[in-house]
Amino acid sequence: MFKKILYPTDFSEIAQAAIKYIEQLKSAGASEVVVLHAIDSRSLDLLVYNPAVSMEFEKTLREDAQNKMSSVRSHLEGMGFVVSTGIKVGIPSRVILDAEKQEDLSLIVLGSHGKSNIREMLLGSVSEEVIRSAQKPVLVIKR
Amino acid sequence: MFKKILYPTDFSEIAQAAIKYIEQLKSAGASEVVVLHAIDSRSLDLLVYNPAVSMEFEKTLREDAQNKMSSVRSHLEGMGFVVSTGIKVGIPSRVILDAEKQEDLSLIVLGSHGKSNIREMLLGSVSEEVIRSAQKPVLVIKR
Repeated sequence: MFKKILYPTDFSEIAQAAIKYIEQLKSAGASEVVVLHAIDSRSLDLLVYNPAVSMEFEKTLREDAQNKMSSVRSHLEGMGFVVSTGIKVGIPSRVILDAEKQEDLSLIVLGSHGKSNIREMLLGSVSEEVIRSAQKPVLVIKR
Repeated sequence: MFKKILYPTDFSEIAQAAIKYIEQLKSAGASEVVVLHAIDSRSLDLLVYNPAVSMEFEKTLREDAQNKMSSVRSHLEGMGFVVSTGIKVGIPSRVILDAEKQEDLSLIVLGSHGKSNIREMLLGSVSEEVIRSAQKPVLVIKR
């Protein structure tokens, strides 16, 4: 029922806080974690007009995400989980919902910033969109 | 982390389906369940113009809820949970969020109808409002 968890993360404090809930779910049967990070293509589009610069920025963001992802992977593997990871460029809620369709998941665990996050105020709440459209159960960890 | 669960229910199929997730959380430390049903005061106001009839309807709804609540209580007690129950008249999301403030909770577990439910289309989604405003983690079970 909680075997395979999709854990979308923006590497924020609240996303990191979700990890301890994933750990707690081990004793309820959780054994695999798919960690997913989305680089928001709209932020790139909003910020940068020159495609060459945009690609440069994306490369930097991707490298930064890869470093953080390695640390999340080690952390979860240290807890005994089978871990797979992905970094995708796109609209985060769509990236997450696409992953939900492709993976044979039990549960999505995600942190929610609430209204305090300027990005979410501008671009819409990732968690609200995921909760609304997901078919699997969603555990929402609040700020 | 999952010790005391607030379980708001409208006794629908999806709300009932949430019970098996609560059961699964036992091995992750869940031991107490607060079952809460809200009779929507707005539905009564929309339906009935005569206050005497409205009170009559409320009484009937309350008796029906008490019967269903007994059955939920037995079911959860049979799983070994310490159970307390409440039936309140009000706006369901507010009733739930008030209970969250008063109880020393670990987690809210609730079923979500999504857009398929006419009541939620008219009166707004209870689950969305709860998820948005709750401070505790919320496990959302989807239809």
